[in-house]
Parts: sequence; C-alpha cells; structure tokens
Amino acid sequence: MTMFNTIAIITNNSTAEIIYTLQAVIEYLQERDKEVILDEFSTRLVPNVNLPQGNADFFGRNCDLAIAIGGDGTMLRAAHLLADYNIPLLGINRGRLGFLADIPANAVIRCLDEILRGNFIEDERFQLHCEIESKGKTLMESHAFNDVIIQKGNIAKLIELETFVNGNFLHRQRSDGMIVSSPTGSTAYALAGGGPILHPALNALVLVPICPHTLSNRPVVIDGNSVVEVIIGTPQIDRAYLTCDGEIVCELVTGDKINIQKKDKKIRLIHPADHDHFKILRDKLNWG
Amino acid sequence: MTMFNTIAIITNNSTAEIIYTLQAVIEYLQERDKEVILDEFSTRLVPNVNLPQGNADFFGRNCDLAIAIGGDGTMLRAAHLLADYNIPLLGINRGRLGFLADIPANAVIRCLDEILRGNFIEDERFQLHCEIESKGKTLMESHAFNDVIIQKGNIAKLIELETFVNGNFLHRQRSDGMIVSSPTGSTAYALAGGGPILHPALNALVLVPICPHTLSNRPVVIDGNSVVEVIIGTPQIDRAYLTCDGEIVCELVTGDKINIQKKDKKIRLIHPADHDHFKILRDKLNWG
Amino acid sequence: MTMFNTIAIITNNSTAEIIYTLQAVIEYLQERDKEVILDEFSTRLVPNVNLPQGNADFFGRNCDLAIAIGGDGTMLRAAHLLADYNIPLLGINRGRLGFLADIPANAVIRCLDEILRGNFIEDERFQLHCEIESKGKTLMESHAFNDVIIQKGNIAKLIELETFVNGNFLHRQRSDGMIVSSPTGSTAYALAGGGPILHPALNALVLVPICPHTLSNRPVVIDGNSVVEVIIGTPQIDRAYLTCDGEIVCELVTGDKINIQKKDKKIRLIHPADHDHFKILRDKLNWG
Amino acid sequence: MTMFNTIAIITNNSTAEIIYTLQAVIEYLQERDKEVILDEFSTRLVPNVNLPQGNADFFGRNCDLAIAIGGDGTMLRAAHLLADYNIPLLGINRGRLGFLADIPANAVIRCLDEILRGNFIEDERFQLHCEIESKGKTLMESHAFNDVIIQKGNIAKLIELETFVNGNFLHRQRSDGMIVSSPTGSTAYALAGGGPILHPALNALVLVPICPHTLSNRPVVIDGNSVVEVIIGTPQIDRAYLTCDGEIVCELVTGDKINIQKKDKKIRLIHPADHDHFKILRDKLNWG
Repeated sequence: MTMFNTIAIITNNSTAEIIYTLQAVIEYLQERDKEVILDEFSTRLVPNVNLPQGNADFFGRNCDLAIAIGGDGTMLRAAHLLADYNIPLLGINRGRLGFLADIPANAVIRCLDEILRGNFIEDERFQLHCEIESKGKTLMESHAFNDVIIQKGNIAKLIELETFVNGNFLHRQRSDGMIVSSPTGSTAYALAGGGPILHPALNALVLVPICPHTLSNRPVVIDGNSVVEVIIGTPQIDRAYLTCDGEIVCELVTGDKINIQKKDKKIRLIHPADHDHFKILRDKLNWG
Repeated sequence: MTMFNTIAIITNNSTAEIIYTLQAVIEYLQERDKEVILDEFSTRLVPNVNLPQGNADFFGRNCDLAIAIGGDGTMLRAAHLLADYNIPLLGINRGRLGFLADIPANAVIRCLDEILRGNFIEDERFQLHCEIESKGKTLMESHAFNDVIIQKGNIAKLIELETFVNGNFLHRQRSDGMIVSSPTGSTAYALAGGGPILHPALNALVLVPICPHTLSNRPVVIDGNSVVEVIIGTPQIDRAYLTCDGEIVCELVTGDKINIQKKDKKIRLIHPADHDHFKILRDKLNWG
Repeated sequence: MTMFNTIAIITNNSTAEIIYTLQAVIEYLQERDKEVILDEFSTRLVPNVNLPQGNADFFGRNCDLAIAIGGDGTMLRAAHLLADYNIPLLGINRGRLGFLADIPANAVIRCLDEILRGNFIEDERFQLHCEIESKGKTLMESHAFNDVIIQKGNIAKLIELETFVNGNFLHRQRSDGMIVSSPTGSTAYALAGGGPILHPALNALVLVPICPHTLSNRPVVIDGNSVVEVIIGTPQIDRAYLTCDGEIVCELVTGDKINIQKKDKKIRLIHPADHDHFKILRDKLNWG
Repeated sequence: MTMFNTIAIITNNSTAEIIYTLQAVIEYLQERDKEVILDEFSTRLVPNVNLPQGNADFFGRNCDLAIAIGGDGTMLRAAHLLADYNIPLLGINRGRLGFLADIPANAVIRCLDEILRGNFIEDERFQLHCEIESKGKTLMESHAFNDVIIQKGNIAKLIELETFVNGNFLHRQRSDGMIVSSPTGSTAYALAGGGPILHPALNALVLVPICPHTLSNRPVVIDGNSVVEVIIGTPQIDRAYLTCDGEIVCELVTGDKINIQKKDKKIRLIHPADHDHFKILRDKLNWG
C-alpha cells in the first residue's frame, strides 16, 4: 500500500490533453502525500506548479515509480530514461490506444487508486543492448526497448548484411535493412515489415528483413539469450544507419560490426490488475 | 564408443536407392557386431536378410539407437514410432536435402563411423501433444513432431475458430484453418502458410492462420510451455479435421475443443558433429 | 425514367431483416406500377403476397432489372442466375457492408427513387468461364463471377499443378491449390490468399497460389483476354476439386485440364450515382 | 535483313567481361558493315577503337538499333537515354541472368546473326512519366521504366501519403513509402515490397506500399491509363524523396503533389525469337 511514495512523471508532448492530465495526476498524487518529481519537459508544461525537477539519474536514486503520460512514444522515451535503473513504469494514454501506455485517460483516478493500493500486474520486459565495432574497436554502445534496426542510408540502394547468431553464420542478404526486435517491439515496426507477433513474455528475438531481395527470406525467431552479430557487407555503399527505437544512433560503414543481445537490466511495466494483452492486440489490429 | 549396440532401422519407401542404402547400412552394422532390428516395412524390403523384426514397443525396450532411411517424411514416421521412448534417432537422406534427415547418402559410412565413435551432436526437440474433447469428454489424444492443424473439411467454406492461450482468449478468426507448430515444424507447412522460421532450440510454439479472412491476422509466437485451446466455433459447418504431421487424426464438429501443448517426451535427434542447421536453411530455401 | 418496368427479386436467406426489406421493396415497386417477379426462394419468404414466380430463363425473357436482397453471397447467386442474360442487377445490403450489394437497407427508398429515375451508374464486370477436359473430352463447363479455384481434396496433402497462359508454360507448383480470380473476385478469397486488389474495371486475371511450397511463388496478374490452362499433375493424389465462386463443380483427377477464360457475357451491376468503390475498400479493409 | 544499319552501343560498367564483349560486338558489327556509335562510357572502355561517339540526341537522330551490354541496370540506363526516341533496344547480359538483358554473353554471335536477319521479337513496354507540383507550380518532370517511388527521407520515421486515382481518393496511408510500378518494374523493387508479378504486356500499374503501418494495406493494380496523384501529407516530416528507377529525382516537402501516368513514348525491346518471359521468371525466382 505504501510501496510507491516518490513518483517521477515523464511527458514528451505538449497537447492540451496531456497538460490537463499532467495537472490532474500531480494534484491526485499530492493529495495522497506522494512526493512528485517532474522531468524537464513536464516542468515546462506546468510552469505554475512548484515541484522538484529531475533527470534520469535523479529518478534512479530517488523514485520508486515513474508515470509516463502520452502514448507509446512517450513510454519508449521513459523506458530509455529508466533503462539502467530498476523503477517500475506505468503509462497513461492520451491518444490512440497503446500497446505500452494502457491506462485510459478517462480511468486515471480509478486505476491509480488500485495501483497505489498494490493491486496491479508487474510485467517485466527485456531490453536490447547493442555495441558497434568499427575497425576493431568499440565505437559506441546503445540500447533499445523495441528494436535495433540497420538500415540503408541511400535512398533506393540495397545494403548487404551478414548475420551471425552465437557465432554461427545465418545468412548474407541484400535488402533495405534488418530489424532485430524484442517481443515488445514485435508489434511495432517489425510487424509492418512482415514479422510475427511475439508474446511479450517470450524469451526470444526476431530478425525481420526489410524488403529482402531474395523472396524466400523470412523472419527468423531465435532464443532471447542469443548473441546476434551483423556485419555491414556492401562494398559500394557509402552509408547505412543504426537506429534504436527509431532514433538514429550512428552512421555505419562497410566492415562495421553490430553486436546485439539482451541487456542485463529489464523494464518493469505496471499494468492495472485487469490488463489483457490479447485484448489490446485485438483492438489495435482490428481483429474481429 | 560402445554406446550404440542395438540399432533399429526404419524405412517407409521402397525406391531402389533406399533398398540399396538399407542393405549397405545393415552390412556395415553387422560387420561392427551391432545387433540390428528392422521395422516391418524394412523387413519386406530385404527379404533375403535374416534379422529380427520389431515394433515401436520392442524398439523401445531393446534399442539404443534408431536409423531412419528416406527423407523428412520417414523421419516424421520414425519420430512417431519413438515418440514415447527415449531412443536417439538419426536420419540418412535418400532424396532431396532434408531438415531432419541430414546424413547424405554418399557419406553414410564416414558419418556412421564418427557417430558410433561417439562423435556427434545430440539435438533434443520437443513434440506436441493434443487432446480432443467433444461434449465434455476426451474423444482421443495424439501427438505431433511438426504440427497440429485444424482445417476446414468443406472445400471453399471458411471455419471459425476461437483460440485461447493459457486460458486467455486470443482471437476468434475465420480462415481455412490454423497451424500450431513446434520449432521443428516451422520450416514445414507453417512456412508455406506465411509463418516465421523458429530456431529448433527455441522454446516456443507458433500459431499460423491459414488464409485468414481478416487481413491483419498474423502468426503469433508464444512460450513453448503454453497451453493452447482451440474451439470449433462455426455453427453452420458440418466438418473440420484435425491432422498431426499431415495425418488425419479425427473429424471435428462445432463445439469440439482441441487442447495442444508440449508433450512430456522429447525426440533426440543425432547429427554429425559438423551439423549446421543454418546451412541447411540456406540450402533448402535458396538463400544467396 | 421508364426504363425498368419488369423487375425480378432474388434472395437466398430468410432472416427477419431480409423478409422485412423484401416486403418493403415489393410494396414500393407495386405502388409505382412495376411488374414484380420473384424467384422461388423469395416466393416462400412472402407466402401472402400474390406475385408471379420465375426462374432464370423466365427472368431473362421478361425482366429489365433484377434486385438482390441480402449480402455479397446473394449477389453471387443472382449473378449466377443472370450469367447468360443481359439484365442489370442491383444489390440491397442486409448485413455487413458488401463489395457487391452496396445499397444500404436504410436508404432503399431514396436509392430506388433515384435509380428508377435513371440516375445511376452501370458497372460492367466480366465473368469467368471454365471447361474441364478429362481424357481428351470435355467433362463439363461452368462459370464464375469471383473465382475458379483448383484445390486439394485430401486434407494435408499438396497438389501439383501445371499452369499455361495462352499455351505458354508458366509454372509447375506444389501448393494447397490455385485461385484464378477476376477483378471482382480479387477482394474475396484471393485477398485472403495473399493476392493484390485489382480495380474492378481492369481487364486482367490474377493467379494466386494457395500456401505454395516454394516460397518465391507470387501472385501473377495477366491480361484479361488470356486463356489459362491448369493441368492436375500430382500422380499420387486421389482427389482435387474445382470450385466456382465457392461451389464445388466437380472432382478432378490426375491429367485433367481446366481451361479458364473470360466468359462472353458480362454482369451489369447498377450502383447509386454516388457509388465510390474506393470508399467501400477503405471501409471493408479498415484503412485509416 | 537490312533494317538495322546504324547501331548505338551503351555500357555503364567496366568489368573485364564487359570490355571483352564490347570489343567482340564492335568487331562483329564492323565485319558486317554496320555503322557503330558508342556512348561516352563505352568510348572510354575501348580507347584504341576509333568510332564516333554520341549522346542520346545523336542516337535518336541517327541510330536504328541500340545494344546495351551489362545487366538490367545497364538496360535501365539505356532505356533512360532512349526514352524519347523510338529506337529498338536489345540487351546482352554480362552478369546474372536479367529480366531485360536477355541475350546470354555466350550466345551473342548466334543471337545477333538472327536478329540482324530480322528474326526477332519486338516487345513494346510502356514507361512512366511523373510531374512534381510544388506550391501550385510544376517543379520538374521525370520518367521511369520500372518504377516511381516516393520514400521517407528520415531514417525510422513514417511518411503519410494521400493517393488519388483519376481524381478519386484511394487512401491515406502511413508507411515507409509507396512504389508506383509499371509491369516491367513489377519484378524489380516492387516484388521485394510484396507486390504481385504483372505480365509485361499487361496494361496496368501497381501501387505497392512499403512497410505500411496498417496491416490490411495491400498492393492495388489499376488500369495502365490511370492518372495517379500522390500528395505528401505528413506535416511534421522534413524530407521525402522521389526516385525514378532508383535514381533520386528530387526532395519533396509536405503538400507536394506527384502526378504519375503512362509516358507517351514506349521502349521497344528486341528479344531473340525464342524469348520466353516465363522461363526467365522461373529461373530468376528459383521456381521448381
């Protein structure tokens, strides 16, 4: 009942609906004597509210819950902020129904009541970690909640990628790129690319080629503990890009290696007790 | 080195190549003082050879290795025979390259030498178990190595299926049927139906709709320990069929429930030490 | 204004909604001094109404308009009845929105007023004709509005088909079957099989393989004046089936040839003047 | 027999094989008293050969045949050069089998003998014309043999496109882009994007969405005489690109309109008399 006392709030959009819900949530939490810390974006949304502001590290040291208000994009941003900390995260949806932000704006009070009372589901999701090696040394590291994507940079030219799983050569393929997705990401871009839906609790990764030149290429699902290595193979291409959850991480050149595996830290999603992932699937995908 | 001493041989095709390889394998094993037991089909292929004949149960009690000679269909049949026993199985390929029967006919001696010397890979694969419940009581049980398929029986009419995973409603869908496939089966019919490729060691099942009426239906990959329940929902249809690995198990009527989950016993495939599953994938699917 | 005077009514379902609309349409037409002729099914739906009953031939000789009340299935049945005559056909929808039956039940009066006043769109659609040749002689002929399908009869066994276009060998493929679809049929079963959407006015046929074993098989779109010939090639299969618009036409055996081409007669669909095919597409497929 | 007297040669790759074939073809044509004109690229490949050099316009005024030596990329380049002239074009393949460059390098002499003797097939293919309108005025015009593609410029962001066919609104879709392909282009990038194969003689265009966000989006095939209009709709995107046959034509901004329709001039491909398009399909796509 008293488990969540210091609560971070994260936003990344400034619509009237978000500001309204942000204000309502702050008021609600203050009435219940919770300490509320805002991220920088939220602070700017409610200039008249006098609350401490924090960054990821500050959240990590002080908060026992984070609330994101917005859509799945806001949840992705919040997950990035909290990637290395162990703070439960819940999402209030202000927009179209989300896979991640599943508390409807019109049920915020009721849902928060239940959750603060300890009546919720915790849903641990793994993240991806990636490391880019260029000319034998580590260029940079990054992480993703949904997907790591290696994509052509040149409009209208294919790239050639060599993929290894646990050191074993899987394939060399020419395509617009490849998506390495977590189960969480399987309903995002990977789905548009023709990938299967992975149950969020499945310990697996899926490799989805984007518009592969060879028509018999298919998505490949591998164990979640696998190490995936992708080598940029095209000699004549000048640019390729690595993105994590839709943000460009770096430019890639021929010979670069990208190492992708499960990150050691997880994201702890908090859902209302009646959360039903399959119902969200059916609603979002217009099934039946 | 002396681990395999009593060896069952299983065939199910009578081509000249199979008879020739069968004779060669028998001779090879006898020269090494192995006890050889034939299944009924093999006995008829080599009428002049005087060897004991066994059925599944006899194999189970006496053999420490089984060799299937043929193709993936023969391996499926052998897997069915050995489903409840714990006997390692290896496949000698007499036909097109197989996913399961991976010892090429022209390398039999060399491969068997290595395998009998203890130099091999053991590759445990899980099987599926299914139980059909009709009007509240169990009608029958069966098992599959590749896939359990619920399919329309009426040409040109859809069936309506309701699917539950661990008791949670997944979807109601109208289609030509649904494939519930093991990782082993993911490169068989499920692939033709648009399913992803599952690594054989992945602990997962994939549900692949066959020509679904709703275009946003996609294959769904779930944990291998899930219990899948499918209910035949179409009121106006007179027939549907359940098949296991391509063999009709029974006719289904509205209201029948099919319960599918991992079988308690595994199939232990034996491969040469240099076995490379990804290479077989690349070769079979004409990648690159 | 006086163009439609003798009007046939066709139904094939006996829901309360259809009976209600049937009665309303009859009354509406009688008030406007139209001669109304019912098909046998409709006669049974309104036993108290005293109207002449006709069959296809009678309609052909006497009617200048046919009205189908039901859904796309009713329109298919009406199109079959009128296949060889030249009677315009309009569809009143009593059910889910239809591609063919596009007059909504709640706008019947308004739409009929406009149409009888001559304010409508005529939309000519071609039909398919097929001829089955067995052992050198014609076994039978049939026709379809949506599609001619050659399908496996044995659950869980593939069939092998050889396809020729204008006498030129296209491919030999193993699959669950093949759909030869008109543009009208491209939004029916062919779409579930992975085919493209063809604009209804396009002069083309599309060949869609059903779950082809070779992953690089793709739908092929050919000129609408082409002659397609399919030969049942599988030696070991005992049965395959030919269906036209979802109705089984005949059983097929190895060596049978099916000749498919455009039928000489067209179906003349009548739409309200504001008919918008793309809007129906968007609505039916949940686009946007 | 004397129909082809002044012959242009076009190349765009400098491999040893191409130089060898170029020399052989020049020698062959000179021995037969043909006038040979080289494009600039070819002139540089054979510096010791003294032959007139021409550009597109010079070819157009003087040549009665063009020979491209290379692969399908070279044929595309040749088609661009000849887009506005009426010169027959044949392709000698130096690389992997091509859809367009179909004279195998090892049969050049035999094929040229036949073709110069008048024994060939002429295969007229239509091209696409596109016009970009920005803020009410025409920005530029271009043309394509395979495809016109509107593509996102920002890695990992969707674009929103509104598409009209003959002035009728078809759909608004969010995706990585859209391919508008001729039948010729249907076996190029459109196929990797999931499009159907269009017979080259079909009078049709196909619209193929690239990784559409809405899973029920499908390729749409429309009459070849249609006018397609695409409007860049995404407000927040800064860049999109228009490419013709894989070459960037221009950057696009929100509100730009792209008008695509059949070009008035055709490309006249010359094939050996035994040309078999379906055989090329089967070979290129590994069918059977």
